[in-house]
Amino acid sequence: MLEISRRGRVVPSSSIRKLVPLSDHAKSKGLKVYHLNIGQPDIPTPEIGLKAIHHLDRKILEYSPSDGFFSYRKKLTTYYAKFDINVNTEDIIITTGGSEAVLFAFMACLNPGDEIIVSEPVYANYIAFAILTGATIRTVSSTIEKGFALPPIEKFEVLINKKTKGILICNPNNPTGYLYSKIEMNKICNLVKRYNLYLFSDEVYREFIYTNSPYISAMHLTGIEENVILIDSVSKRYSECGIREGMLITKNKEVRKTVMKFCQARLSPPLLGQIVAEASLEVSEEYMKNVYNEYLERRNFIVNTLNQIPGVYSPTPMGAFYTIARLPVNDTDKFCEWCLSDFEYNGQTIFMAPASGFYTNPTLGKNEVRIAYVLKKEELQNAMLILEKALKKYNNTNN
Amino acid sequence: MLEISRRGRVVPSSSIRKLVPLSDHAKSKGLKVYHLNIGQPDIPTPEIGLKAIHHLDRKILEYSPSDGFFSYRKKLTTYYAKFDINVNTEDIIITTGGSEAVLFAFMACLNPGDEIIVSEPVYANYIAFAILTGATIRTVSSTIEKGFALPPIEKFEVLINKKTKGILICNPNNPTGYLYSKIEMNKICNLVKRYNLYLFSDEVYREFIYTNSPYISAMHLTGIEENVILIDSVSKRYSECGIREGMLITKNKEVRKTVMKFCQARLSPPLLGQIVAEASLEVSEEYMKNVYNEYLERRNFIVNTLNQIPGVYSPTPMGAFYTIARLPVNDTDKFCEWCLSDFEYNGQTIFMAPASGFYTNPTLGKNEVRIAYVLKKEELQNAMLILEKALKKYNNTNN
Repeated sequence: MLEISRRGRVVPSSSIRKLVPLSDHAKSKGLKVYHLNIGQPDIPTPEIGLKAIHHLDRKILEYSPSDGFFSYRKKLTTYYAKFDINVNTEDIIITTGGSEAVLFAFMACLNPGDEIIVSEPVYANYIAFAILTGATIRTVSSTIEKGFALPPIEKFEVLINKKTKGILICNPNNPTGYLYSKIEMNKICNLVKRYNLYLFSDEVYREFIYTNSPYISAMHLTGIEENVILIDSVSKRYSECGIREGMLITKNKEVRKTVMKFCQARLSPPLLGQIVAEASLEVSEEYMKNVYNEYLERRNFIVNTLNQIPGVYSPTPMGAFYTIARLPVNDTDKFCEWCLSDFEYNGQTIFMAPASGFYTNPTLGKNEVRIAYVLKKEELQNAMLILEKALKKYNNTNN
Repeated sequence: MLEISRRGRVVPSSSIRKLVPLSDHAKSKGLKVYHLNIGQPDIPTPEIGLKAIHHLDRKILEYSPSDGFFSYRKKLTTYYAKFDINVNTEDIIITTGGSEAVLFAFMACLNPGDEIIVSEPVYANYIAFAILTGATIRTVSSTIEKGFALPPIEKFEVLINKKTKGILICNPNNPTGYLYSKIEMNKICNLVKRYNLYLFSDEVYREFIYTNSPYISAMHLTGIEENVILIDSVSKRYSECGIREGMLITKNKEVRKTVMKFCQARLSPPLLGQIVAEASLEVSEEYMKNVYNEYLERRNFIVNTLNQIPGVYSPTPMGAFYTIARLPVNDTDKFCEWCLSDFEYNGQTIFMAPASGFYTNPTLGKNEVRIAYVLKKEELQNAMLILEKALKKYNNTNN
């Protein structure tokens, strides 16, 4: 007896986490480690958000409503209207980060044994949440050669069976930075309609789109209004990852009613984070423009620089703040580990995320890494120089 | 297709929630509603906790570690030492409220189909979390006649079978206010040891014990150190329900390792709440003493007053800030509803929690309510007068 649950045994530890002790050890030796491994922006949180808690005049930090403050949800409807997403306050449920929105969406819609389909590489934590609900994620592979575009829709269709309950997309995509085109979104829409599936759509990076292609939200698709469950979060757009404020948005009343039971069981989303997030909705356009320009400049720099390093290739991501790059090594798990454990250049090294953690197929992504451009350009410059030096030394030493 | 999950269909909506619209409606008619229905203290949050966010000097509200800040966990070890609970920083995982600690503990330890045993009346949300993990809660009834003491341990033992994985206690108890004695805790300990079960122990009310009996934590029990999972939260002790800061504490490394995978999937506990909670650990003894005395006075007042109302009986709860009282009505669901929908006394009415929501056996608790004494004494005085008037009118009208 006294055993761990089956789900506990099979939830994977992320490939990044395994490298954290090495990174800590490198730092303890006095090395500077450039963190390209995690989507934690270095951009300052909007002043207006910080001021809201500096000037908080509550005497009691009490429960907020289980679905979040009405005033906050009201302001969110105005925010979404700017993106032609037409939602009412009752369509929006405030969650503890986008993570809880994913968990509760899966819990409300999926039975143990059910399947959802997603293109890989895929944000690893979706898989953990699927396992927690007893569901299975089936994957269709997108490839670096095609810039991680949506794989042919027939490859999704062939996976559909009686257990299939939904399709999951992340758009703009973490980890690839890909933005689905209108044609691709319509293909997904048709498939969802034909088989009456749920469409779980994580769109937390909508503010960061660097191409002229339009942002097509799952909420823009017609005829599948009851099928769409939008996952959102303020973490990335306002550099507020720590406050844990997400949203689950759907026109489907039954789903909302069910999600609300889970929300009531966990009582309320974080109070202080809601206060920050609600205030942040009033952030100036200038702030958002500056953040956008900063990421755009970084993206252009990092993609150009990566492609100048011998043997390295990165497609040009259209959104978010990640790129998946191919490196001239056989096994990026080993290379990323080596960078932290055995390499330094002028007292510095880099921490990248091996792409293996974003694929369920163990043969894929072995020579790819995910790079988050969440550092200042001068730091990215240093990091790219270190990557070049590291690749040279690694391939001289190990090949 | 497009169906809600089975778990979504069976998670119960709480009996309190069903009354919320009636309460809102009563308020919209201009009635004053005394909220005895929810464990939301009216006690001010410690100044030192509020100041910590008023003076926050962070520029970026970034992710905190998945297991919470080390400095916070370090201070918590000192806090627990005051209660003779000997834990290290690595034994403590910071969670998003006690709720997440319960969910993650169940997810880590219980497979679908597994059973845990608990005495009822029981905090309703445990049942929701058990359903979310696919586990079943089996109950042993405690009774108002015996002051909700631990039922004979043989009644627990008879329920133990191959599927039984744990026992869950809440001590001091929500909803009954009962405090388990050393003898009772030893009985639980022996049972846990004999069958090698998990012991999930929710001890969030340890600060509020109004009797000379000692507080026996599950962590004090010897020989079952690997079996115990302590659930804790700062919500009640510092009147910080909204910040969502809980803890899952265990000496069992395998459980911690598994819980950490879930913690990593949800990235981090709330940052701002941790800052408030860490600061609040330095609250003055005077604050805690005042809060304690305030609750003690309220408890004495409410128990005495309830027992003076004809036909009403309340045992004397030894801890927490609830009591379960027996009323001279057949169905407290109907009576509590009537108080909100059809009754007023001088423009006022009361909102109590029907006890049916705390029992899994539908025949139990029909004439009981849970009363939370989280209002000032003058307000409790009014509320008790209203209860007396309401009972009189209800029984004249309906019987």
